[in-house]
Amino acid sequence: MFTASKSALLDALKLVGQIVERRNTIPVLQNVLFERLGTTGKLIAKVTDLDIEATIPFSAAVDTGFRGFTVPAHLLMDIVKKLPDGAEIRVEAADAELTGVTLKSGRSRFRLQVLPPADFPSLDGAEMPFAIDIPGTAFEHAIGGVRFAISTEETRYYLNGIYLHPSEGGLTLVATDGHRLSKRFIPLEGVPQDMPGVIVPKKTVEALLKHLPKNEDVTLQISDAKIRLMIGDMVLVSKLIDGTFPDYRRVIPAYTNFVEVEGKALSAAIDRVSTVSTGNGRAVKMTFYEGLLKLTVNNPDAGNAEDDLPYEGEAELEVGFNAKYVNDALANLSEQTVNIYLGDPGSPAVLRADGDHAENLIVLMPMRV
Amino acid sequence: MFTASKSALLDALKLVGQIVERRNTIPVLQNVLFERLGTTGKLIAKVTDLDIEATIPFSAAVDTGFRGFTVPAHLLMDIVKKLPDGAEIRVEAADAELTGVTLKSGRSRFRLQVLPPADFPSLDGAEMPFAIDIPGTAFEHAIGGVRFAISTEETRYYLNGIYLHPSEGGLTLVATDGHRLSKRFIPLEGVPQDMPGVIVPKKTVEALLKHLPKNEDVTLQISDAKIRLMIGDMVLVSKLIDGTFPDYRRVIPAYTNFVEVEGKALSAAIDRVSTVSTGNGRAVKMTFYEGLLKLTVNNPDAGNAEDDLPYEGEAELEVGFNAKYVNDALANLSEQTVNIYLGDPGSPAVLRADGDHAENLIVLMPMRV
Repeated sequence: MFTASKSALLDALKLVGQIVERRNTIPVLQNVLFERLGTTGKLIAKVTDLDIEATIPFSAAVDTGFRGFTVPAHLLMDIVKKLPDGAEIRVEAADAELTGVTLKSGRSRFRLQVLPPADFPSLDGAEMPFAIDIPGTAFEHAIGGVRFAISTEETRYYLNGIYLHPSEGGLTLVATDGHRLSKRFIPLEGVPQDMPGVIVPKKTVEALLKHLPKNEDVTLQISDAKIRLMIGDMVLVSKLIDGTFPDYRRVIPAYTNFVEVEGKALSAAIDRVSTVSTGNGRAVKMTFYEGLLKLTVNNPDAGNAEDDLPYEGEAELEVGFNAKYVNDALANLSEQTVNIYLGDPGSPAVLRADGDHAENLIVLMPMRV
Repeated sequence: MFTASKSALLDALKLVGQIVERRNTIPVLQNVLFERLGTTGKLIAKVTDLDIEATIPFSAAVDTGFRGFTVPAHLLMDIVKKLPDGAEIRVEAADAELTGVTLKSGRSRFRLQVLPPADFPSLDGAEMPFAIDIPGTAFEHAIGGVRFAISTEETRYYLNGIYLHPSEGGLTLVATDGHRLSKRFIPLEGVPQDMPGVIVPKKTVEALLKHLPKNEDVTLQISDAKIRLMIGDMVLVSKLIDGTFPDYRRVIPAYTNFVEVEGKALSAAIDRVSTVSTGNGRAVKMTFYEGLLKLTVNNPDAGNAEDDLPYEGEAELEVGFNAKYVNDALANLSEQTVNIYLGDPGSPAVLRADGDHAENLIVLMPMRV
């Protein structure tokens, strides 16, 4: 029915790992659907888990008698991966009823069971009234800068994704788990200001980040319930999280005072002192005093640790944070110099990369130390 | 009390990962013991799990008032790893009673709890009447060539290690799990022929393999219950498995007919066809017929796969093996051309690397296909 190269087929299957589970109670969801791309000579490979659907066209020499079919996606990917690089793969109907397909390459032959394409569910097709074009790199940076703060608590399902909403002069992305919040702004023309804010699920975000081609524009299309992402030839359709994202603006303090520290030095020092922490809730005490930031961790079971580094600015106070959350935040600030905006010991801190857009920031809740 | 470099201390702690558990119901077993090496100026680091004990000397500038102590081994290793490369580390008694030690490096300071050295158990000290010197590389190859066959079934504890016994002109190593057996011979002079066969536990084998320095001789000393391995400065003492290794010679068939195949081609083909297998008991059917070895895997749940490659020799038969076991065996045969000695379909096969010592072989039990 068609012949394709190993590399073309692997590229068509690149989202299998993200989307398809090896075992699914609905057998057809374990499969990848192959069918013609409209009336062109090209083929597409489609996978879905009912929440997200990926459609990837690929180059193949297609026989005129080609009929669509579905085969186990992971099994096919495993087979294709093990074939020698540069291999040509021939896929044929195993019989006239298409109860299976045979795959041949070199001296290897495989027979795979198929399920009919009519059983394969489709997510796409709905009208999506709002459209935005975003430069791929800017989108990738913004997603990459907020995703660490996505909550994985299932009870707070409305925090299990990235909140995306129009704002003046562009698009804002926010994620929070209640302990930290990250916000990024993409300056952009043509964002429909009447577009509703939507919550894009974490799984879709991860699939996107893994496969966003550099330097390629991304077209978003959005409806109340779904988002469609078109990147080059690839189309991702995802359900949105059906919930209300909290009014995050209320938790961002409006401090004007900040101190400056070197992000990498702070991160390395936190990493060192938190070695003596065990288990969760690993607090690090930060004491800002006369230009020296002292870091302290006390663990009655193991010992204690101290480190220090210089800071610039006026603040003098003692405040505790979750060590991991500070380091996650620092890892997601692009510039070397980090500005930390501080209130009092019981108040959240705001971290910003020096010189970054004023709308880009991370909020960290304090911990008692 | 002493000052040492990061690299010297890390080297002294290199067996912590193999031997020390982070959590142990006997707290002192979580610790590493530091004490003077006899009356020399040097220090040793010692760790144990009561079955195996490693003693590693390291270079340090030692104060005259040095007293031995033990500290949590993983915690210390984690701290040392996070210090910058090239760091000097100063370790001091935290107080006159030595209730803790402080560790200082650059701007970092750690206080660690200690346990008294008197609580630290010792495995070593017994008389070991038998001694063997082995070139390190030969020992490493022999261990590396049999360890894949070590059983992990706890009920067959006497198979949970490598059986080591004197044989004519050298030393023989054997491991088996009842499904496959691997045997290697080290030609060696001076092996005491009255030495009992001993079973060296898997954990000791793994620790050895991870840290056997190349080109350095290994001295084995053996008693009824323990083995001492001296490699350069390092001393490993291990309990032996207290059991009787079965008379393995009875399961090695004495075939004279064999076929020749290319090991890598066979391994790659088995890897490809076994893609369609799921779960355990992944049998591959091997059909030798007129110079063509056909490999077949049938999985009613997923599909089937076929591959073939040429062989040289007279055999014509159909026989099944566990695909993983064949590939483990092929990975442990050093030469490109593999000789497979075959009986009838219900009999084990013997695999040997063409040109290897006649005593080196792997036995594979067949599977019904």
